[in-house]
Amino acid sequence: MASIEVVKGLVREADTKIVFIVIDGAGGLPHPETGKTELETAQTPNLDRLAAKGICGLLDPIKRGISPGSGIAHLALFGYDPFKYEIGRGAIAAYGIGFPMEERDVAARMNFATVDESGNVIDRRAGRIPTEKNAELCRKLRESVKLEGVELFVEPVKDHRALLVLRGEGLSDMVSDTDPGATGVPPKEPEALAPEAQRTAELVKSFLKQVKETLRDEKPANMVLLRGFAKKPSLPSMCEAYKMRCACIATYPDYKGVARMIGMDVIEVGSEEIEDEFETLKRIYDDYDFIFLHIKKTDSLGEDGKFEEKVKMIERVDANIPKVEELNPDVIVVTADHSTPALYRAHSWHPVPVVIVGRLVRPDRVETFSEREFITGGLGRFEAKELMTLVLAHANRLSRMGA
Amino acid sequence: MASIEVVKGLVREADTKIVFIVIDGAGGLPHPETGKTELETAQTPNLDRLAAKGICGLLDPIKRGISPGSGIAHLALFGYDPFKYEIGRGAIAAYGIGFPMEERDVAARMNFATVDESGNVIDRRAGRIPTEKNAELCRKLRESVKLEGVELFVEPVKDHRALLVLRGEGLSDMVSDTDPGATGVPPKEPEALAPEAQRTAELVKSFLKQVKETLRDEKPANMVLLRGFAKKPSLPSMCEAYKMRCACIATYPDYKGVARMIGMDVIEVGSEEIEDEFETLKRIYDDYDFIFLHIKKTDSLGEDGKFEEKVKMIERVDANIPKVEELNPDVIVVTADHSTPALYRAHSWHPVPVVIVGRLVRPDRVETFSEREFITGGLGRFEAKELMTLVLAHANRLSRMGA
Repeated sequence: MASIEVVKGLVREADTKIVFIVIDGAGGLPHPETGKTELETAQTPNLDRLAAKGICGLLDPIKRGISPGSGIAHLALFGYDPFKYEIGRGAIAAYGIGFPMEERDVAARMNFATVDESGNVIDRRAGRIPTEKNAELCRKLRESVKLEGVELFVEPVKDHRALLVLRGEGLSDMVSDTDPGATGVPPKEPEALAPEAQRTAELVKSFLKQVKETLRDEKPANMVLLRGFAKKPSLPSMCEAYKMRCACIATYPDYKGVARMIGMDVIEVGSEEIEDEFETLKRIYDDYDFIFLHIKKTDSLGEDGKFEEKVKMIERVDANIPKVEELNPDVIVVTADHSTPALYRAHSWHPVPVVIVGRLVRPDRVETFSEREFITGGLGRFEAKELMTLVLAHANRLSRMGA
Repeated sequence: MASIEVVKGLVREADTKIVFIVIDGAGGLPHPETGKTELETAQTPNLDRLAAKGICGLLDPIKRGISPGSGIAHLALFGYDPFKYEIGRGAIAAYGIGFPMEERDVAARMNFATVDESGNVIDRRAGRIPTEKNAELCRKLRESVKLEGVELFVEPVKDHRALLVLRGEGLSDMVSDTDPGATGVPPKEPEALAPEAQRTAELVKSFLKQVKETLRDEKPANMVLLRGFAKKPSLPSMCEAYKMRCACIATYPDYKGVARMIGMDVIEVGSEEIEDEFETLKRIYDDYDFIFLHIKKTDSLGEDGKFEEKVKMIERVDANIPKVEELNPDVIVVTADHSTPALYRAHSWHPVPVVIVGRLVRPDRVETFSEREFITGGLGRFEAKELMTLVLAHANRLSRMGA
């Protein structure tokens, strides 16, 4: 049972603070030469101290064997049942840039791409064009594309990533992706996945036709690919459910999006450096009860297969841990949303370490922050959606259940 | 949540192979003199190597404390919720010999037995008559027993075990067993367990009366005992759900029955020797993605209380493990459907070891194949119905879930 259901009626307010650090994709697989994972290879004296002081365990992000997307994995960490709440990429993108979605909207993630003369995709990311160019192209599309009966929003996100929102009555999100997921083939046609999506699919087709025309002379971004059509999601607010003032410190739009969806305040960091994230934590510490701090780069390096660089990034996170301890929060949690082993180059199902540190912790014998050591941790192995109950308990924010 | 539900929408085809070995009843209890279980007593250098290379854990066949029948335990191993799918012994027996059941059929397991002059059962297995004699008696019953309005099938299975099928409209499987489960008492009367089963119960009574008459002068098989009345089960196909070509290598009819019910191809071994099962594996290896290899004798020896012989049989299985490794499958799984401790002489609830070996495994520190060592395995302890999700993940056969 997910935390948000378990704790219903038990949550009480308290004067305690929780810092919740997610090292994205931190879990790994052993390097063939050393037999050690990224976490086992990294020198992490500070995380090891937390492991020794705290209680440790392993989390299955969703269920044993399931590799999650980032959105769903974070929802689970915050206590939402990942089988109950579906959120599409389009909605995550919209919330990520703070776009105020309405009930009647349909949003999609839009990537600028490059197609050749015969219309085949040759770069799904248009050479990762700079955000400024992206913004310019979005402006251009907004001005020239017209769709009968719907209002159109085309907003830049970051690099080659943008957001498309159609606003109007009777729109459906049951439209298939146009991103073929590969190069050397043309974009897919948007198809209605349900009868009621027929008109939306036609509108998207018309949009794409006009985009192609408008971007014809652009280089390299002469086309767009759409995926994750989604309506506005309806998720209970984490702040209300847990009676806490919650904040999110993240540099990457998707995580801000998920955080905003469940009611967190999203704090601007102003850079992509993790040191600035920890400085931001210090700055806002007094104003919040629960602060989620997200580290992105460990995941990206895992996806790129860069074992050594991921190790270095873990060490850089470790070096910032004393900044958290100095604040002396009642509870520190360090975990990951899923594993991204450099040897697998993708999100994986392997369980991730979790440590809870605080005054009310009953410690175990674990003294090193790693997947293998945490097997014998006192928290055991459990599903991420159950974690928040433990976190709230250690922050003295749950009453007794039953007579 | 059972694997077959969890993986819905995530299964993808892949060019990977899985060998799934079930050592029936392998789990045990410590011998009073040595304090070691059957697995701990056996010399198993090859299984130990798998434990060292792989990731280990303990499976509860159904739930903590529940001792399962073979059919249900295997369904759980293959990812079916054991509380959702009921399959009667009659249906297992029918599928075990490849009898093509129809929707309107009711099948029951039929054991030849010996009764004394006053009608009390003195041997529930009729001295385990040879299969040839069994076939002869079935022929005799087919010829002489007549039932009004239903077609009758009486088929030999093995030794003293046979199959009874009634075919006709309006039949019900809500009929009680006639096997008293003990000697010195008469067979029980078949009772209707629901109003709609009244006619079926009457038909079974008439059948038994005619059997008694027909077998009157037979020795020792002068009666039959019926149990597990069952309609044709309706189970999703494992091959379709997991998008794999699945095969079963087993020597014992019931396991073939369960495998056939969920869509596996059942391969003839041609003998009862486990060496021949491993040879069969080699022979069919190229034609399948998932091969289930079942070892029966460990269970039978456990039920007979033969500790030392069960140890020897485990060692014989161990000696065959290199034949699997030589094939170099992407994933090797070794586990059991339940424990059958020689000291308990029955299926028990004690959890069973499971090891997964493959390229994508994140190993733990376990180096010995045994119940006690696997307690600290990296897979932890979980219910068998969740195993297939992990197996498919390690075979790279699952896509990511969610955005």
